[in-house]
Amino acid sequence: MSYGNTFQSWRGATPAWTDYTRHKFVERLGDGTLPRAAFLHYLKQDYVFLIHFSRAWALAVTKADTVDEMRLAAGTVNALINDEIALHVKTCAAAGVSEADLFTTQERPENLAYTRYVLDAGHSGDLLDLLAALAPCVMGYGEIGAALAAAKTCDTYSEWINTYASDEYQQLCRDVGALIDNAVQRRLGDNPESCPRWPALCRRFDMATKLEVGFWDMGLRP
Amino acid sequence: MSYGNTFQSWRGATPAWTDYTRHKFVERLGDGTLPRAAFLHYLKQDYVFLIHFSRAWALAVTKADTVDEMRLAAGTVNALINDEIALHVKTCAAAGVSEADLFTTQERPENLAYTRYVLDAGHSGDLLDLLAALAPCVMGYGEIGAALAAAKTCDTYSEWINTYASDEYQQLCRDVGALIDNAVQRRLGDNPESCPRWPALCRRFDMATKLEVGFWDMGLRP
Amino acid sequence: MSYGNTFQSWRGATPAWTDYTRHKFVERLGDGTLPRAAFLHYLKQDYVFLIHFSRAWALAVTKADTVDEMRLAAGTVNALINDEIALHVKTCAAAGVSEADLFTTQERPENLAYTRYVLDAGHSGDLLDLLAALAPCVMGYGEIGAALAAAKTCDTYSEWINTYASDEYQQLCRDVGALIDNAVQRRLGDNPESCPRWPALCRRFDMATKLEVGFWDMGLRP
Amino acid sequence: MSYGNTFQSWRGATPAWTDYTRHKFVERLGDGTLPRAAFLHYLKQDYVFLIHFSRAWALAVTKADTVDEMRLAAGTVNALINDEIALHVKTCAAAGVSEADLFTTQERPENLAYTRYVLDAGHSGDLLDLLAALAPCVMGYGEIGAALAAAKTCDTYSEWINTYASDEYQQLCRDVGALIDNAVQRRLGDNPESCPRWPALCRRFDMATKLEVGFWDMGLRP
Repeated sequence: MSYGNTFQSWRGATPAWTDYTRHKFVERLGDGTLPRAAFLHYLKQDYVFLIHFSRAWALAVTKADTVDEMRLAAGTVNALINDEIALHVKTCAAAGVSEADLFTTQERPENLAYTRYVLDAGHSGDLLDLLAALAPCVMGYGEIGAALAAAKTCDTYSEWINTYASDEYQQLCRDVGALIDNAVQRRLGDNPESCPRWPALCRRFDMATKLEVGFWDMGLRP
Repeated sequence: MSYGNTFQSWRGATPAWTDYTRHKFVERLGDGTLPRAAFLHYLKQDYVFLIHFSRAWALAVTKADTVDEMRLAAGTVNALINDEIALHVKTCAAAGVSEADLFTTQERPENLAYTRYVLDAGHSGDLLDLLAALAPCVMGYGEIGAALAAAKTCDTYSEWINTYASDEYQQLCRDVGALIDNAVQRRLGDNPESCPRWPALCRRFDMATKLEVGFWDMGLRP
Repeated sequence: MSYGNTFQSWRGATPAWTDYTRHKFVERLGDGTLPRAAFLHYLKQDYVFLIHFSRAWALAVTKADTVDEMRLAAGTVNALINDEIALHVKTCAAAGVSEADLFTTQERPENLAYTRYVLDAGHSGDLLDLLAALAPCVMGYGEIGAALAAAKTCDTYSEWINTYASDEYQQLCRDVGALIDNAVQRRLGDNPESCPRWPALCRRFDMATKLEVGFWDMGLRP
Repeated sequence: MSYGNTFQSWRGATPAWTDYTRHKFVERLGDGTLPRAAFLHYLKQDYVFLIHFSRAWALAVTKADTVDEMRLAAGTVNALINDEIALHVKTCAAAGVSEADLFTTQERPENLAYTRYVLDAGHSGDLLDLLAALAPCVMGYGEIGAALAAAKTCDTYSEWINTYASDEYQQLCRDVGALIDNAVQRRLGDNPESCPRWPALCRRFDMATKLEVGFWDMGLRP
């Protein structure tokens, strides 16, 4: 499981990464002890999250420098809106929650803080600033899905786990990792860690990771 | 051929609409008298245009208020990047012009003026401002393709004509027309022409139409 | 004390307005029981807030439709950066906190959520969406300053209170109120409350007010 | 006359710089042979230009990384809106053209292309991309004003010439030059010309310079 060199470097510089990927919410998804109410509450918030996260990936299309960057960002917007969101709609529908209800879910502050931070990273900076803020969600879910699927502790939330452990999602993580590596190489060169902008990109990644932790915390409080 | 009520109203308020849709460049595409060099020059500029036009549709995703608005805008980004641009790449490749060459085409000022105006309409206003600036290109090409296909004067540029006369493209025009009607209804209500913003939206449509005329003028000057 | 008709209407539709303007943090500023540590913690967070709030007013300049709208928004950017921020710098300097320290204050999530929400209101919508999100801070501080100055309970935080009770700040509130009234009239006409967009603008104002409440809550937790 | 190292380097890499700063329009301003009608036509277009150029500087405030960057960008917005635009209003008023007329001047495509390109440079990139597109106007007018004032050929357009030759405007150019040098140093380090982004920044500067040439060309065609 390798999502690229840049991700590896950003991840290594982020102490909060473990807090995020091994959060109590994640553990309970794995061992099935997460209350159903908390899971549904999380799914509803995550639906709203994905709406704004899709907007942030669409913003990436507007900030791309090459056709390849555009294509990958546009493909991700589509995967989010038509695949990942669709899973939420389906799971929630099975639990009696319609998409109209999902769309009007009262957004929690922890949710709002995260997505608006990502969008502002894009508006205030360039594509790299935006990608550094987008990466923790994409790749963290990839790591979490793969780890929980490998552990196979409990079937309760296996549909969720398998979504992120799937070849399709793992490929998305590798594609985004390659997009980031290429975007970094194109703008910062072969030795990006020596660029003055590097610490700022690491801080973006770190902040988004902390906001993921806040999102899981919120998930445990329906 | 109906692309919605709003389009009909904006079109009717725009004297330049005829200058655009019955431009000499269009006539010559129809009767086959357009020099091949002018056509290739146009295709190259149009490739660069579509890159920035796709960015503007991606911006629309970030400015949508509903999931339906997001889905349609995201679908249009994809259609542009993966279908319409692909046609340009294919046609140009057949004429010995690679996509790398296309991407580095020196953008003409008339081209630049148009797409940056559309993007700024989106950044400075809301989704309606952006849609009013996006509409003339989408729907005008639909009208031109349908009219030239119906006239069937000459086969020289039939591949181009059939692209825009195709059921698929005509459906895109109707979908975008419905998106605009719904977006207008949602924001301005049932009687939008009486809203104070209406003249400003008409001016956006009118300006984008004039910039289309400038684009055709440029097309005749390889 | 009147900050315009639109503000009066938005304020009246927002139950959280009282939670915000009569928050425990405000009471303690008035009666001097707010611990100094909480005040300094608040000032540091508010410094970071003002940086991003200034960015949001600068965004308003880019989204104005008239020279008058531009001038007022640009004047507010200046008042924020050169006057209001300067007060924070001065007060903090007296307490041994340098501006460099202020700028690197670790931004709390409640702070981040608020300003990034305002910025996104501007990027996703038009000037009205942005103004509805900007208004609660500007006018709420005007109301709070005036109320605490009138009550004159205690001198401990009188410099802070007098800043917002001052003629200069009260005039800023009236100017922003007039800007909003004119911007609304220009875009929605004489009967704005009947426009389909009105509820969405009220929701923007309401959300920003709730985020103010969250900011005060955070202020009590140094 | 030195406006900083970065400007010097960008200027040196731009063959169009001479076309811009020694354009026939400039010569005729200097020797007084520019027809009054052309000058007034130019002033009206330049008024509209300055509106959008001010918006682009306001965008720079939203994209700044430090308080100093914010202050200088905000100060420039103010100088543009309250000083430079005021000169246009005054000169045009003396010629019987009101500010309301100025604001509704039909924007020429060459004018529109330029400002929307600058705004898009800011939206699609970071502060450096925006500054590279803003620099040619600020510094070019500084060079032109200083050169014409030194030549003192004719008094006809001396008020215009003296505005840009003034200590105040020359200081603005030096301040913007220092802002750019610092912004470059902060993001690209001490050896910016070796960064992969450097050629892209040079292209931004070059394109904006060419759009200045187009603006002068347009000025000669009332």
